[in-house]
Amino acid sequence: MPVELPGARFGDVAPPGPGYGITIRVVTVPSVTATGVLAAAVAESGAVLTALDVVEAVSGTMTVDVSCDTLDAEHMRRVVAHIGRLPGVEVRSVSDRTFLSHLGGKLSVEAKAPIRHRDDLARVYTPGVARVAEALAANPDDGYNLTIKRNTVAVVTDGSAVLGLGNLGPVAALPVMEGKAVLFKQFAGIDAWPVCLDTQDVDEIVRTVQIIAPVYGGINLEDISAPRCFEIERRLRSLLDIPVFHDDQHGTAIVVLAALTNALRVVGKSLAEARIVVSGVGAAGTAIIRLLIAEGAGDIVAADVDGVVVRGRGEKSEDWQWVAEHTNVEQRTGTLPELLVGADVLVGVSAGDVLGEADVAAMAEGSVVFALANPRPEVDLQVARRHATVVASGRSDDINQINNVLVFPGFFRGLLDVRCHRVTTAMEVAAARALAGLVTAEQLNPGYIIPSVFDSQVVPAVAQAVAAAAS
Amino acid sequence: MPVELPGARFGDVAPPGPGYGITIRVVTVPSVTATGVLAAAVAESGAVLTALDVVEAVSGTMTVDVSCDTLDAEHMRRVVAHIGRLPGVEVRSVSDRTFLSHLGGKLSVEAKAPIRHRDDLARVYTPGVARVAEALAANPDDGYNLTIKRNTVAVVTDGSAVLGLGNLGPVAALPVMEGKAVLFKQFAGIDAWPVCLDTQDVDEIVRTVQIIAPVYGGINLEDISAPRCFEIERRLRSLLDIPVFHDDQHGTAIVVLAALTNALRVVGKSLAEARIVVSGVGAAGTAIIRLLIAEGAGDIVAADVDGVVVRGRGEKSEDWQWVAEHTNVEQRTGTLPELLVGADVLVGVSAGDVLGEADVAAMAEGSVVFALANPRPEVDLQVARRHATVVASGRSDDINQINNVLVFPGFFRGLLDVRCHRVTTAMEVAAARALAGLVTAEQLNPGYIIPSVFDSQVVPAVAQAVAAAAS
Repeated sequence: MPVELPGARFGDVAPPGPGYGITIRVVTVPSVTATGVLAAAVAESGAVLTALDVVEAVSGTMTVDVSCDTLDAEHMRRVVAHIGRLPGVEVRSVSDRTFLSHLGGKLSVEAKAPIRHRDDLARVYTPGVARVAEALAANPDDGYNLTIKRNTVAVVTDGSAVLGLGNLGPVAALPVMEGKAVLFKQFAGIDAWPVCLDTQDVDEIVRTVQIIAPVYGGINLEDISAPRCFEIERRLRSLLDIPVFHDDQHGTAIVVLAALTNALRVVGKSLAEARIVVSGVGAAGTAIIRLLIAEGAGDIVAADVDGVVVRGRGEKSEDWQWVAEHTNVEQRTGTLPELLVGADVLVGVSAGDVLGEADVAAMAEGSVVFALANPRPEVDLQVARRHATVVASGRSDDINQINNVLVFPGFFRGLLDVRCHRVTTAMEVAAARALAGLVTAEQLNPGYIIPSVFDSQVVPAVAQAVAAAAS
Repeated sequence: MPVELPGARFGDVAPPGPGYGITIRVVTVPSVTATGVLAAAVAESGAVLTALDVVEAVSGTMTVDVSCDTLDAEHMRRVVAHIGRLPGVEVRSVSDRTFLSHLGGKLSVEAKAPIRHRDDLARVYTPGVARVAEALAANPDDGYNLTIKRNTVAVVTDGSAVLGLGNLGPVAALPVMEGKAVLFKQFAGIDAWPVCLDTQDVDEIVRTVQIIAPVYGGINLEDISAPRCFEIERRLRSLLDIPVFHDDQHGTAIVVLAALTNALRVVGKSLAEARIVVSGVGAAGTAIIRLLIAEGAGDIVAADVDGVVVRGRGEKSEDWQWVAEHTNVEQRTGTLPELLVGADVLVGVSAGDVLGEADVAAMAEGSVVFALANPRPEVDLQVARRHATVVASGRSDDINQINNVLVFPGFFRGLLDVRCHRVTTAMEVAAARALAGLVTAEQLNPGYIIPSVFDSQVVPAVAQAVAAAAS
């Protein structure tokens, strides 16, 4: 029985991927063609077969585990329904590999050394620990030597802007923060701990982070909605003597600056002279604009859902007010497509499908398009490539992936290595330059402007640049 | 050269132990007697030699690492000075093995599964994690399945009563909380995380713990001074839907009830009829009194620094008021020694050396003395044994050690295993009975009323009792 195929949606959404991988356990009648029928059914339904395991074959029945990657949750259901409608096939269970990998959470807290006997207990706990506590009471700065503080980062969220999904609250944010902690450990050896706050009041968030800070060597703010995130970060930076870094702002800004530096090398234009249009002035957009200006960008115009940012629009936060005062020198107005006419660079951190082919075609010769909205970019990437010289996105299934994972592990590694007390714009610029510098002149081309997240040079290069800028 | 020997202090303080272990690196003139001279010097100074390693012996000099256990920080300095005064011996460096074991802290945060490639990244982080976040937003209770919540406990302190040392603040408390987390993992497989609060305001502590609670399946309060600890625990228990347990209160009370149950079996007395004197009405004393009464104790009199607790004394907290109303039925007054005349049981959770031999001698025939002040008990243990039938302390170098480590790992294991929402007195009584029950009738004797902290039966027995009492 035919199923509605997803073909029409290919090209502008991600293909079937492991984030939506399932294993369907079916019971069928044994035959030489049975597995072939199952494999064909998977293909027909638009999924990608990843494994086919015969679990059991006894007296007239055969149990098979069919593993495949699908497009999304709805497609998952359609694939299962299609398999279930095959003659003689019964679906026994469906396991979702993403959910399986989350069972019981993704982190554990481990002792660096086991307590094997009373002597260990006496050193690690009482009575020995009393002496360490007294030493720290006399000199709290020794916390960097004698406690976990020196390598530990809090990943703090209030769940108000989880991924691109919106205000899902602290519990829903926890698997994202755990994932972030996994990346901190894997890429930079940092012990990161999720702090999911059951409040969305700015004053309470600031005070709570201040109160829990003694354990940590740094604070990574995450998935907090704008403009609240600006005030929270600013106040924490002035209150705490450990570095505070809102990754959605600065992590994104750094990787965008690095990628844009290389993209402009490809098209032979300068940051100072390029006409840059930024679509989206949330946490990421605001930070991107600030950092590009710090590195010398001379002509930025920003647009958000309310239109082009011009002076006197009455911005709701001082950060947006800053953007209004430091962009759009000519006080241009109009729609986003109108702004793009003759522009050299589009940096999209807004929403999917807000632009069409004509909009990209109207840009200047040798244009650069960063369409970073997720999962659907601002413009179809293949369509954009017909006109723009360099196209990048946030997508893991495309070339030129702009991903914060390129920044935050190395950035915090550098901060912790030198026991840095505060983050500066100079460190952010240094990190971006280091990241851009990993792509050599020989390697540089329109399809390779930024290294892979699995490139082992990335973390040391970023860490070293941050540490050098800190001292 | 002779040193001032610590002999006079032996007997009433702990002997040299690994909590005060050092390694002294010395350079000396090579000879067949050199190591013997060093070993003799260690013994002369009252330390216990644990290792003697010749590191290097070249042209006229020999480098030796002398490791030994000492009494305390001051003794440590005297031992080093004594070694340094030996002819031809030069002390190069002294390393403190307790401090060495704390370098960089005692915990790490680990990923349960590594990210090996893009497919892992897609499941553990974006895009896969988005689906898990959405599922949790729809049903936050699934946090027990899909996040670390199910096996994670916060070890929360404000540093106001660190061990017996007093108000040292949150940074000084951190190594103690880390040690506690190590014990949680080692003994019960629980992921525990230190939360050291930079505030000592009761309202702020309550609100902060409430705000950070989403990540945790339970809250272990620790080293918070009385009477603030009572209010903090009570308010958190009413606000949170996860169990809250102040270990200094309830952990201590449970292990005391277990030990006392067995001690009374040894002397053939009943809890209902025994005359019990409690010295010290802080966090531990108050909880001990409550739990003994819950299990049927009929005659408890309490005393603190202000004297005997009687009604109408004007207590500063409702918990102390409760103690005044539920103890001392006959409204006796007098000093602690006067109360002890004819008493069956002393439970001391107060301060060192507050009682002498005559005080214990005046107790009833077959008396029980728990002298739990640390490091110096309320009365010299050897002196007490001349008159009391059963003597127990908090000391790891003596028999009958009353140690919270016997309780909190198993107690939380039980709570987490059944996803318990609140702690009840019934669970505490059940835990104490289970712990007491591990000492069989054949094993029971005045020198063995409680199992060792390294007894592998302890955690499962306590966990099972708590889980059963919860359902």
